[in-house]
Amino acid sequence: MEGQTMIRLNCDMGESFGIWKMGQDEQIMPYISLANLACGFHASDAVTMSRSVQLAKQYNVIIGAHPGYQDLIGFGRRSVTCTLEEIKSIVLYQLGALSAFCKANGTTVSYVKPHGALYNDMMRDQNILKAVLSAISSFDKNIKLMVLSTPDNEAYEYTAKMYNIGLIYEVFADRNYNDDGSLVSRMRDNAVITDELEVMQRVKTLRDNGYIESINSKKLYLKADTICVHGDGENALIFIKALQKVLN
Amino acid sequence: MEGQTMIRLNCDMGESFGIWKMGQDEQIMPYISLANLACGFHASDAVTMSRSVQLAKQYNVIIGAHPGYQDLIGFGRRSVTCTLEEIKSIVLYQLGALSAFCKANGTTVSYVKPHGALYNDMMRDQNILKAVLSAISSFDKNIKLMVLSTPDNEAYEYTAKMYNIGLIYEVFADRNYNDDGSLVSRMRDNAVITDELEVMQRVKTLRDNGYIESINSKKLYLKADTICVHGDGENALIFIKALQKVLN
Amino acid sequence: MEGQTMIRLNCDMGESFGIWKMGQDEQIMPYISLANLACGFHASDAVTMSRSVQLAKQYNVIIGAHPGYQDLIGFGRRSVTCTLEEIKSIVLYQLGALSAFCKANGTTVSYVKPHGALYNDMMRDQNILKAVLSAISSFDKNIKLMVLSTPDNEAYEYTAKMYNIGLIYEVFADRNYNDDGSLVSRMRDNAVITDELEVMQRVKTLRDNGYIESINSKKLYLKADTICVHGDGENALIFIKALQKVLN
Amino acid sequence: MEGQTMIRLNCDMGESFGIWKMGQDEQIMPYISLANLACGFHASDAVTMSRSVQLAKQYNVIIGAHPGYQDLIGFGRRSVTCTLEEIKSIVLYQLGALSAFCKANGTTVSYVKPHGALYNDMMRDQNILKAVLSAISSFDKNIKLMVLSTPDNEAYEYTAKMYNIGLIYEVFADRNYNDDGSLVSRMRDNAVITDELEVMQRVKTLRDNGYIESINSKKLYLKADTICVHGDGENALIFIKALQKVLN
Repeated sequence: MEGQTMIRLNCDMGESFGIWKMGQDEQIMPYISLANLACGFHASDAVTMSRSVQLAKQYNVIIGAHPGYQDLIGFGRRSVTCTLEEIKSIVLYQLGALSAFCKANGTTVSYVKPHGALYNDMMRDQNILKAVLSAISSFDKNIKLMVLSTPDNEAYEYTAKMYNIGLIYEVFADRNYNDDGSLVSRMRDNAVITDELEVMQRVKTLRDNGYIESINSKKLYLKADTICVHGDGENALIFIKALQKVLN
Repeated sequence: MEGQTMIRLNCDMGESFGIWKMGQDEQIMPYISLANLACGFHASDAVTMSRSVQLAKQYNVIIGAHPGYQDLIGFGRRSVTCTLEEIKSIVLYQLGALSAFCKANGTTVSYVKPHGALYNDMMRDQNILKAVLSAISSFDKNIKLMVLSTPDNEAYEYTAKMYNIGLIYEVFADRNYNDDGSLVSRMRDNAVITDELEVMQRVKTLRDNGYIESINSKKLYLKADTICVHGDGENALIFIKALQKVLN
Repeated sequence: MEGQTMIRLNCDMGESFGIWKMGQDEQIMPYISLANLACGFHASDAVTMSRSVQLAKQYNVIIGAHPGYQDLIGFGRRSVTCTLEEIKSIVLYQLGALSAFCKANGTTVSYVKPHGALYNDMMRDQNILKAVLSAISSFDKNIKLMVLSTPDNEAYEYTAKMYNIGLIYEVFADRNYNDDGSLVSRMRDNAVITDELEVMQRVKTLRDNGYIESINSKKLYLKADTICVHGDGENALIFIKALQKVLN
Repeated sequence: MEGQTMIRLNCDMGESFGIWKMGQDEQIMPYISLANLACGFHASDAVTMSRSVQLAKQYNVIIGAHPGYQDLIGFGRRSVTCTLEEIKSIVLYQLGALSAFCKANGTTVSYVKPHGALYNDMMRDQNILKAVLSAISSFDKNIKLMVLSTPDNEAYEYTAKMYNIGLIYEVFADRNYNDDGSLVSRMRDNAVITDELEVMQRVKTLRDNGYIESINSKKLYLKADTICVHGDGENALIFIKALQKVLN
């Protein structure tokens, strides 16, 4: 068989805050492989983190820290101009906090996936990438970093090796890609693919042939360890179940 | 020689927040043995924690986590009615966050001393004490808990043993004690002893004879592993230097 | 006709926070008379407040400020030990903020109803009541204060008059009352009446005969300017519609 | 006499937060004419605002609202990507909150000066300027907006007139200017002029001849209603006293 195998689903989880609920974690957790758990800066709180770790453990879901900028009002989607010391420190802080809940429950944090604007800034700016890698590396070199897969991942590989950190490559099946492998900006109408059958087809093509088609039908061969799914849409649960069936 | 030996000084450190500075940590750190580092809930932030851990390590000061209620405006001095799940979770969260900075700097958290209202609530309410012990115990049984020493510490000993957690007994040399060993309430005028020579004399008596005198001159024999000093007064540095000389 | 007339419905509204939604304000606003709008301390944010004021104005709903303790994580339901200067200041701050959105939309704040723990503390402690009244009085003496109606409201009347502030008396139709007119504590199982038909019957009795029955069937005659309804239950909309029909 | 007259001193005040103190407001207030009071988003809190308003009133200092981005950790110095609805709403919220304390103390907010990154963003982006003007205009058209004076203020004048809002022009005496009238970036070493005698000379030249010299000795003729002084430096008080003497 050609192409890549064992593409796992990752999903942002544990994004409630205090009394405010978000998502349907209890329903979705059984159908994903990797749970990106918010750490209290853009969403979540100590109790929510504790419960989210327990829920992930119950379904043998691998736990990732999902640190974000310290901005509850903006849900971590607004870029905050931080120094590199600040970036490293906020990642370490959140990683440590989540790790405590994992340790208390006999499990561990396996990877870090920065959230929202921090993820975008990290993919855009080598120095921010290094600050994130430095935080992880100083804490535990067994923890991997999840990054956006591009047609040319060598620069990321190279930088990550400097810090002895492994990478997990993520593809977005429901986002359109430009010819250069970047995501079509959310400013544009065709950023997101809402047709679930089309998304499913893209996942199959990626699994069987190893590529995603750009908006101009260019074949983008992307290393894909995991696909990001969203747990908060109307049909999220049905879709994730179907996708999980396709991939297993 | 009678009495207790090796009484060490502990001091709240790392209580700046963002741009706002507090204390004179650089000056005081060389003269204390135990640094209670704030963890971002009642004071401090990720960068301040990172720097505080580095400063403590530089002077071989033992690091303790100083978790508080989530209340920056009140500096953790106002009691917040939490469930036991919340208490356990906020202690774990803060302990984990500080541990990450310690791990990144090749050191560890050696003890936990709850801050302000959380400390008072823990001493007053066995269930809160248990929630704190449970948090520490689930994270790392080598981490001790600092508590207020009383003439009868047996109940605390007993409870701590249930969680396999060691205790560090703290005495306040600059606070007046009631005959039953409780601290005179801060509501009353004579709560704090401001005369530094008197405080020094109390420390010497404690070290040499093992007791502190209550407001009615009753001798309170108190197990004293450590004395709490305050880093923010006008003569704090001079006084701490002198005290450290007395104790060594 | 005996008893009281013109009992109006009040409901907590505008309690979303950032990305997190709460309630179904768009659906419920048309059926209530008084909207208690959160002011950013226990819930809501600047944008949510702006939109909530516009929504209330659209349906000619009278706007009340719903200030709370500064505690998003606890949704203002945890009492925070504040000085009276703090109580007065946080009420003024929130009242002013909401007033700005009202002024910008050509309307005004007509009353203040403290939220959650602040409401309970105000009903329990005359000094807190005075701090709240003082805040309102110093801002605008035309603004009323909503309080819990009791069989004997004279003390509240007397205190409010000292500050030249009018009172709006509120009754809870879905809460059980003790014989002395206090609410059955939420700690007890029978605190809340979930049977909607029973609640409806209680409202009718209150409207027609002016009393609510205590848990021991004692008739509690209560001045009732308004009844508090909750917008977040499953059948909230249907129930509020029905209640509004009964009262008009 | 040539040049401009009646240049008044403005200073950021009320920037403490909870237990953390900043500045020496009590000492400086008597020597300034315009106090920019923080409103709780980047600094200050309800009690600090209440006290700051009272202090300003005591010395007959004109009160301005100093709203910032909602970012205590960054002290409002980091730009936050907000929608225009968010900009308008956060300005209205903060303006309203401060106005309440003014109203309670028998005074009013006379102007708005956005803080830090919000100030810079407003000067850079016409849409943000309009959002700020719109907030003020919808609240009270008697309130002015303080902006950075440039050699060509016509565009600002034009926009402000659209919203019926008057402008107050501010010059920085201790900042170097580029030839085009923009401030030398804080990224560069020569951004700030630390020599107090030089600053004093620049103020005199501005007062007598109406211009400030750029880094290349170009004469920049700037409308100057007010000069911004900083209250937190070591010699701040001495310098402000001297400057006030020069200007009166």
